[in-house]
Formats: sequence, C-alpha cells, structure tokens
Amino acid sequence: MGKKRNLYLKTIPVEEAKEKYMAVIEGIIEPEYETIDVREALDRITGQAIFARYSSPLFNASAMDGIAVKASDTDHASEAAPIILTEDKYLVVDTGDPIHPPFDAVIMAEDIVEEDEGIRITASAHPWQHIRPIGEDIVAGEMILPGNHKIRAIDIGVLLSAGILETEVVKKPQVAIFPTGTEIIEPEDKPEDGSIIESNSRMFENMVTAAGGVGHRFPPIIDDYDEIKNKVSEAVDKYDMVIINAGSSAGTEDYTVHVLRELGEVIVHGVSIKPGKPVILAVVRGKPVIGLPGYPVSAYIGFENFVTPIIQQMGRRPEQLTETLEAHISKRLVSSLKHKEYVRVKVGKVGDKFVAAPLARGAGAAMSLVRADGFCVIEQSSEGVDAGEKVKIELYRSKSEIENTVVVIGSHDLILDVIADIMPNEYKDMHVTSTHVGSMGGLMALRRGEAHMAPVHLLDEASGEYNVSYVKKMFNEPMAIIKGVHRIQGIMVKKGNPLGITNIADLAEKPVRYVNRQRGAGTRVLFDYKLKEAGIDTANIEGYDREMATHMAVAAAVASDGADAGMGILSAAKAMELDFIEVGPEEYDFAIPARHLELPHVKAFIEILGSDEFRSRLEELGGYSCDRAGEVVLI
Amino acid sequence: MGKKRNLYLKTIPVEEAKEKYMAVIEGIIEPEYETIDVREALDRITGQAIFARYSSPLFNASAMDGIAVKASDTDHASEAAPIILTEDKYLVVDTGDPIHPPFDAVIMAEDIVEEDEGIRITASAHPWQHIRPIGEDIVAGEMILPGNHKIRAIDIGVLLSAGILETEVVKKPQVAIFPTGTEIIEPEDKPEDGSIIESNSRMFENMVTAAGGVGHRFPPIIDDYDEIKNKVSEAVDKYDMVIINAGSSAGTEDYTVHVLRELGEVIVHGVSIKPGKPVILAVVRGKPVIGLPGYPVSAYIGFENFVTPIIQQMGRRPEQLTETLEAHISKRLVSSLKHKEYVRVKVGKVGDKFVAAPLARGAGAAMSLVRADGFCVIEQSSEGVDAGEKVKIELYRSKSEIENTVVVIGSHDLILDVIADIMPNEYKDMHVTSTHVGSMGGLMALRRGEAHMAPVHLLDEASGEYNVSYVKKMFNEPMAIIKGVHRIQGIMVKKGNPLGITNIADLAEKPVRYVNRQRGAGTRVLFDYKLKEAGIDTANIEGYDREMATHMAVAAAVASDGADAGMGILSAAKAMELDFIEVGPEEYDFAIPARHLELPHVKAFIEILGSDEFRSRLEELGGYSCDRAGEVVLI
Repeated sequence: MGKKRNLYLKTIPVEEAKEKYMAVIEGIIEPEYETIDVREALDRITGQAIFARYSSPLFNASAMDGIAVKASDTDHASEAAPIILTEDKYLVVDTGDPIHPPFDAVIMAEDIVEEDEGIRITASAHPWQHIRPIGEDIVAGEMILPGNHKIRAIDIGVLLSAGILETEVVKKPQVAIFPTGTEIIEPEDKPEDGSIIESNSRMFENMVTAAGGVGHRFPPIIDDYDEIKNKVSEAVDKYDMVIINAGSSAGTEDYTVHVLRELGEVIVHGVSIKPGKPVILAVVRGKPVIGLPGYPVSAYIGFENFVTPIIQQMGRRPEQLTETLEAHISKRLVSSLKHKEYVRVKVGKVGDKFVAAPLARGAGAAMSLVRADGFCVIEQSSEGVDAGEKVKIELYRSKSEIENTVVVIGSHDLILDVIADIMPNEYKDMHVTSTHVGSMGGLMALRRGEAHMAPVHLLDEASGEYNVSYVKKMFNEPMAIIKGVHRIQGIMVKKGNPLGITNIADLAEKPVRYVNRQRGAGTRVLFDYKLKEAGIDTANIEGYDREMATHMAVAAAVASDGADAGMGILSAAKAMELDFIEVGPEEYDFAIPARHLELPHVKAFIEILGSDEFRSRLEELGGYSCDRAGEVVLI
Repeated sequence: MGKKRNLYLKTIPVEEAKEKYMAVIEGIIEPEYETIDVREALDRITGQAIFARYSSPLFNASAMDGIAVKASDTDHASEAAPIILTEDKYLVVDTGDPIHPPFDAVIMAEDIVEEDEGIRITASAHPWQHIRPIGEDIVAGEMILPGNHKIRAIDIGVLLSAGILETEVVKKPQVAIFPTGTEIIEPEDKPEDGSIIESNSRMFENMVTAAGGVGHRFPPIIDDYDEIKNKVSEAVDKYDMVIINAGSSAGTEDYTVHVLRELGEVIVHGVSIKPGKPVILAVVRGKPVIGLPGYPVSAYIGFENFVTPIIQQMGRRPEQLTETLEAHISKRLVSSLKHKEYVRVKVGKVGDKFVAAPLARGAGAAMSLVRADGFCVIEQSSEGVDAGEKVKIELYRSKSEIENTVVVIGSHDLILDVIADIMPNEYKDMHVTSTHVGSMGGLMALRRGEAHMAPVHLLDEASGEYNVSYVKKMFNEPMAIIKGVHRIQGIMVKKGNPLGITNIADLAEKPVRYVNRQRGAGTRVLFDYKLKEAGIDTANIEGYDREMATHMAVAAAVASDGADAGMGILSAAKAMELDFIEVGPEEYDFAIPARHLELPHVKAFIEILGSDEFRSRLEELGGYSCDRAGEVVLI
C-alpha cells in the first residue's frame, strides 16, 4: 500500500468545536470600516451611529396648498364677520413652500374665496397652523441610525435628506477559497475517467456572498505539500479568511492539516457531525483558516456550521435565523453515538399537518440538498425519532411555498419533471415536488398521509388491469385515479446490443449482468410477472439483487458498463442513448384520496395533465400516449 | 391666485386600484430571458427547467479508501479461512477513485491486512459494495431545477457538477426613475431657502434592487410639461417601467397626470390610502408608468403597494411575505371613511406580550419609517381599534431583534442615542429603541406595560426632590430608579442673544416669541414651576401654547427664527449653536418596574450607564455629570 493515512485521533461534538474555535476567533478579529457613498449602501452595516447634518424640513414649511398669513391679521374673522386680506397681507403657497416672518400660519385653499379686493376668510387662523416646523421630521444633530444597523432603502432616503452623502460601514470580509486535488477539473474542461468537476468552490463563493462577504476563488492547487503551503501562506497575508477545500479527510492526499500545523495552529480537526466530519479549524497569523471536506454535502454543512458564523461576525451581521416548522417525520431515524446528523428532508403540507420525508443521507448526494425543503437534526447519542413523531425542521424554502406545493411520492417518470416545470410558470406560486420510491412505496406514503398523490403503474396479474385493484385493496377512504399516460416498458441494453439480447429469456441464458429495480417498484412487479410467465427462476438472473431506485439510474448503469441490461421505460433509454427491446405498454396513473381533489394546487396539476402544452412536451420525449391524461375516475 | 389646481374627481380603494391596474398590466408584460454564467447566477430566477448534461458521479466510484476487488475472488473468505489476494487481484483506491471491470466491489482499508504475499481478507465482498454507481447523485438528462426557481449557492454547485456552465434566467426588469420639481436639489448641492433635497429617487433605486430589478435614476426634471413629456416618452421606449416622482399631488405644478393622459392611458388617479393618496397608475405604449407622491412616506407606501408587485411579477419573483406578529396597540386608532391607513408603529416585547406604539402619522415624517418596527393597517370605514386591542403588525425588523430590544418611552435626551449606539456594538444582537413623549407620557406608557423603562426628570415642587415621588404615586408594584445623569436646563436663545434675555421674567416682559414643550414633559413642569416662583401668569408668555415634543425641536425652532426662546438642555443648545441662559441642574433618571431588572438587555443597558465609554461620550456632549449613573435604587 505504502500511502500515508492521516487518522484523526478523535472527533469532538459540534457545539464544543464551535465554542472552542469561536473563543479563539473572537480574540483575533477586529471589525474594519470603510467610507462609501450612501447611495451604494443598501444592506451594508453601519459602523458608528449616524447623526443628521441638516434638519428636515430645512425651514418652516407649508403643510398645505393655500395662503400664508400673519395669524394676528385674522383674529375674529367669522362667517358673520369675514375679513378681506389685501395682497400685502398674504402669500400664495404650495405644500412644501417656505414660510417666513411675518407670516406664521397657513389657511387652506379650500377655506378661502378670491374676491376683487383681496382674499376673503371666514375663520381666524391660529399661530403655526398648517406649518411643518423646521426639523419636524429630522433635527440636525439627531441620531438617524445607530451603529451596527443594516441599511435599508428608506434609510438611504432619510440619510440623503439629512445631508449625509457618505457613511462609514463595516468592510465586507474578504475570503480566499482554494480548491485542492490533482484529479479535479474545471467545469469547462472535458471530463475524463476519474475526473471530478470542481464545483464546491463556486458554491462557497456564493455562500460567502450570502453571508455578507466577498469570495475570491483561486484555481485548483494540486496535491503538493509545498504548493499548498505557499498559496495558503500568501493568502493569509492578503485576505481576512482562507478556505481550503478537500484534502481534509483522512485520505492519502490530505496535506492540509499538516500544512496548517506548520503554518499556524490547528484548533479542531474532526467534528462529530454527519455529513461534514473531516473539518479542520485553524488559525494562521491571526486569520481563520478552515479546511472543508470534498463531498458536496459535507462541504455545505461544514461551511454553514463553521464558516458562515465567522463571516457574519466579521461583517457584524446578525445570524440569520432560518424559518422553522414542526413536521411529522415519515420514517424512524436512529441516533448515532458518534455524531450529530443533519438529515435532509422533503416537507409537504398534506391535510392539516406538515410531513417530512428523509432524503438520501450520503455525503455525496448533492442533489439531496437541492431537492431538500429543509433539514432536521438528530442529536448525538439521543433516542432518535420514531416514525410519525414531531420534529423541528429548519427550512430552505418558505413555509408559504411549501403550503402551495403538490407532494407526489411514488414511481418515477420523466413526466413528473415536465409537470414540475410547467406548474410555476402557468400557476403563480404553485409547485410540485416528487420523491421516487416506487409504486408500492408511494401508496404506503399516501396511506401514512405524507403525500397528496402517488404515481403508480402496478399490474394486477389476475385481472391484467393496472392500478385500480391495488388502490382499492389498500385504502378505506374514497379514492380516485387521475389518469396519466401509457408508456412503453422494455429492456435497455448498450447501443448496438452487443450481447444480442432479444427477450426476457436471454437474461437468464446469456452471460448478462442485469441491474434490477427495488422491491415495490412497478417495473419490478412487471419484471417478476414476465419472468414467471416465461418460467424463469430469479436465481438465474445475475444481478437480480442489485437494486436501483429509478429508470434513469438503471439506464445510467447500463450506459456506463456497470451492467449489461435493465428494465425501464423508452424515454429513459432515449435519454441515455441506449438500445431498447420493447416488452409492452403499461398505465402510469396517479392514486389520490378524493378529499384532495379540490385543493387548488391539485386542480392545477390535473389541468396541466389535460393541457396542450403537456401533450406537446410528451411528444418531444417519445414513448408515451396520453388520450385520457387528466381524467379523474372515482373508485 | 391664477394657478390651475388639478383636483381628483374621486379616489378608489387600494384593493380595487391594484386589481384594476394589475388586470391591465398582466395582459401587457411578457417575461424576458437572458443567458448568463452559472457562477454569477445567485438569486436569479430560472427560465425553463434545467436538465443535467453529465451524471454525477461521472463513473462508478469508490465510496471508501481501500482496495477494489472482483467480488467473486473473495467468495467464502472468513476469519477461519482467510484469502490472500495477490497484486493482480486488487487495486488500491481512495474515496472517489473510479472502479472499472473486472473490479466490482471495494473492501475498506480497515478490513484488510498487508502481508508479504499480498493482502489478507477475512470476509467475502458482495458485488457493488462500497461503490457509488454512476449517476447515484445526478443522472444525465434528469431535471436539476424547475423553471421559476430562485438559484441558491448549492444549486450553482450542482449545476456545475452536472456540466451546466450557462443558464437561462429571467431578465431583471429595468426601471427608469424620474424625480421632478423645480425646487428640488441634489444631495451634494448647498441647500437654499425653499430647497428640498431630492432623496426619494435614491430610495426608489434601492427599493427596485430589493424587488429584483435594476433602477436607473435620472437627474431631476423641472416642472415643465414638454420636458416631462419628452423624457417619459423616451424612457418608455428603453425601459420596462417608468416611475415619476412628485408632481402627482393636486398641487399647482403637477403635470404628470396630464402628460400621461396625452401619452397613454391613466388607469387610476388617486387611491384611498393614507399616506400615499395621489398615486397615478398609467400605461404608455405597453409599459407601466407610475406617478408617486413627493412626501417620503407617501412615496414609500405607494411604491410598496403598486411598484414592488409589478417588478416582482416581471421578474417572476414570488411576493415576499413580511414577518407578522400580533401586538397590543397602545392607543386608540380611529378608522377613516375616506381611506385605508398605514400606521407606523414601534413594537416591543414587554413581559410576555408584544406592544405596538403608533408613531407620527404625517406623510412627511420619513424618520417615522426609519424608526418604525412595522406597521398596522386600519381598514377604510372599519370600527378602528381600541387601546389594548390586538392588531396584526407587518414587521420591518425581525421578531428576534424585537425580543432583544430594551423599549424606552419617556423624556428625550441625547444620551439615549449614545446608549442606542453603544449597545449593539458591545452586546451582540441587543438593541435600544426610544420614543419621546415626555416624562409623564413615559410613566403612563410604563404603567400600561408598553415599555421596559421610562426616562424622567420630574421635579417635586413640595420636596425639591426629583422623580421618586412621582413614581411612588403612580405605581402599585415594586419599582426602581436607575440613576442617569445630572444635566443643565436653561433658556435657549439665538446666537448673540439679540433680545438680551437674562432670566425667566424677561420672557413675559420683552417681546419674545416663546416655544414651549408639551404638557407632561419634565421641562414643561420645570418651566411652570419657575414661572410660579417668579409670579408670572402664563397668559403673558407669547407662544406658551405652541408645543414641541423634544429639546432638539425647540432648539431647531429657535435656530430657524421660528421662535425667539425656548427652554431646554445645554447639549441641545450646543448642537444647534444657540446661546444658553442657565436655569439650573436637574436629575434625569430611568423609572423601571423591579421585575424588569433581571432581563439580559436591561442589564446591558445598566452596565453601559456605568461604563467608561459612556462617560467619555458624555464629556464630548457637554452639560452633563454622571457620578451615580447606572446605580439602581429600589423604591
């Protein structure tokens, strides 16, 4: 083996790591200030308090359209005994015009009558009526904004009216970001075998922006001790903080921790957090330097926990609290003795409760973060949570968005993406989210009240009918089937069909590495049915136990030579440029409790199924027909 | 008079105006798209759905550090019967390394032992163990983001790993902003009598930014019909929307509505909303053109109600919901038959309830917007709300910030600004807000449970003692006095004291225009006491009934020749460069119910009073002494 492995001695809990590091950091960082144009100051944080230079109004000003008068000239005027003010006794003023001695009152335009000799008034004016005194709004010398205040649009308006053109604000922390690794390539490079597209640093750049700093992303550094050392050492002199990505796990190429030990002090190496464990928290010449793991989810969670709070503190921004809600978790989550876990979840409002369904837990599953509506935390060494138990969810999306989302759980088909795309464009603020757990999985979720509807394609072997009998059997409440599409199932094989597969029997007879769908998937049910029909024992299918969760995953496995064949739909085969041996058409519909049919976003969903746009998108995909799409059948 | 006045025939309710205008706008606006670099796409809105170009991982990849093997080579390995794999049977791999045939499984580094002949394993590996299959995270062709989605940092990471370098996003609406008015000056110009510093357009620019558009602010246009017509006409061709500020009231100089009638169609002129009534909603050659009133608060509320929703709609951004809370209103608010009113409020959490205190209601009171924590809406022709009643507040600040704020209501002194400035700098996320209603007003608010403490300076004529007797008399619960400062009261007169005022008696004997403080203000109590002491009848004080709410407002009135004299504190006189005839020192303290003393933000407040920084800031202000500041006296 010969490679050096750098094992952490032990990891420490998240809170302890944070506390330990922040205690060091707080002693180091000093806020820095800069003076900028007030007009460019939106969302910046004030340094010291800001005091008005001018008053507003700048002078005693008329608060009305009318005439300025000397109040004493109007004494005793009444309907019975009107007074005529000659031209030297008044001045026509508009709202905002200045009022000077001897005038000390304004009479509204509505209350005067113009006559030949002058203006007739029928009521006396009391001193200072309808006059906005100088400084009524702002008095010169008055504090307009305190220090540490986030400047808003209205503040900019008021600062300018008070004569403030420039203001001192907290400097944005400048953060250097270094991707490392010999195998990583830039997104514009053509990927080769083993290459990993470097994208974390771009995510970090934008997370720095969101935290109120400025990210400076450098080109990837190869795995070379001196190279890393020199770059980090230079950056520490120029920037307020340095992030090093990857090379922080206990893998062979991680020089980061050794470099940081040589250059400065490593305060924490390894935190009991999942994903995100191999975090390095260090200080080099008075600057925070943080090493983050390479797996995207670990990188994200490490950043959120350890980098974001420091940038906010440097920039004197308040910690941003994420919206939270209480939701029922859809399956049991066990706690670990070794770490606190961040579980990404999809959240939906079904009936009157919020339901959270855990997503893929792997550190590499970046899409799980994109798909997630939020996360819940399973504390280290806790009792875990049972299915149905209430948990606190920290949201990535707004609660109102979640309330306007159709939650679809069940079998996967590309038409779900199509509907999810059409929905918010055609129906303002309405959304669809789908989770792919197969047909039976979807019906189970529906029964647990976690979804509005379940897309299913389940063949009843006895009747040859699709879907209806399964739904009837599993539910005690009035249900409906929303008709979806007919689609073609078949065997996907590599382009050119090198093994010459022509039917199901070939999968057992030829040396074929098959890749299957998970138990409960409609495609699995169909495959089992076809095997039985052909009298084939599953033991003769190599790879029968290798399960994948979607058509596309099966197609990808075949395309990449991870397998030779797998069953799936034509559109998936087309998407991955595979050959396709047709097995037959099937019905892909949506099972739904009748009580959900009247929800506005469910109605929108049904309308889309029946729309011309949906039909034309299906034609592009190919392999579908949809004569009855959008029809609702009560069962 | 001779000027033409442009009276609205009638105004229409806000909702009706919005509906009417939006119906027209929705028929006109088409979203426009542009293609940008994914790395720059933070917070932009996707156009169409985005599908993955590459899978991730790009290949079957090791999920562990260890060795890649062919699973069939490991069959039947056990502790009792280990298998030795020679060099041709395995490959050392790190996490993320590609796995190719014939290898189809990974054994973890921890589970192997290196020996001279090869690697010893003691358990069989099953096919595909510890391998992340190609596309496990993202499958090429899969939808990554739907249309109409706001791109986050994590999305950028995933798009890049899926090979997406550019993306189509909704174009930001381009909004032209025209200030109009002959009397307005730029903030950098020196103000002259009657000039108004133009700041609304800068506020609008930043409100456009906040709504997701790009503001283009033009130099002010003078009040000239053709000038306005030409500029607006040009702008309509180049921009997506045009805002014209001021000139939209029924004052003499408003050409806007006439211009818009000539150029296009005025859909609404005048809305029953206060502040904000003189709004003009028009369409010119298929573009929305909106005229907004000149008063800052009207301008702001008009913008929020009519401009922000259109920019959001053009940019396909969801309406941003502001945080709301339920609070007890501190005084009765009557409803108007004529309009819906937006009342700005300060909100505090005192005890276990939120309390909202209405701020100045004038349309010119821009500082009331800066000071406001939120607003409540009093519906047109409703029953209004009674003091103590619960109202819904839409918040400008976050609820958590409000919860960490010391609410101070009572007499005004500049030291409150000093404390408000020190607080968030020294105590993370803690704030002070103060409302100035005079000493007695503060005690009343305290009794109603609207404040944590009340700054007071009330002389007990009988005992000559300050504050204690008033507090004892008014409260039935255990109270405390937090000692504040000694400060000097006196008569403020213009620089050089042109009327030669030397004492209180001169105010009655000489031709002095006095300006008083409001009933219940400590300064008013002191003035009345001094008058009585000198045997002077208040009827002999010209301007005794003219009331101002703060020392600074009185000082400003004198400085601007709106009055000749007024009573106030030395620091106010100094701030406005006035002469000062000393009347005597007084005690300015804080009354507080004892139960509030243990609140963390109140403790911070007390610590600041006793701090060196506070003392040195007082020395800068002058006129104070503070030997006992921060001392807590239970009474």
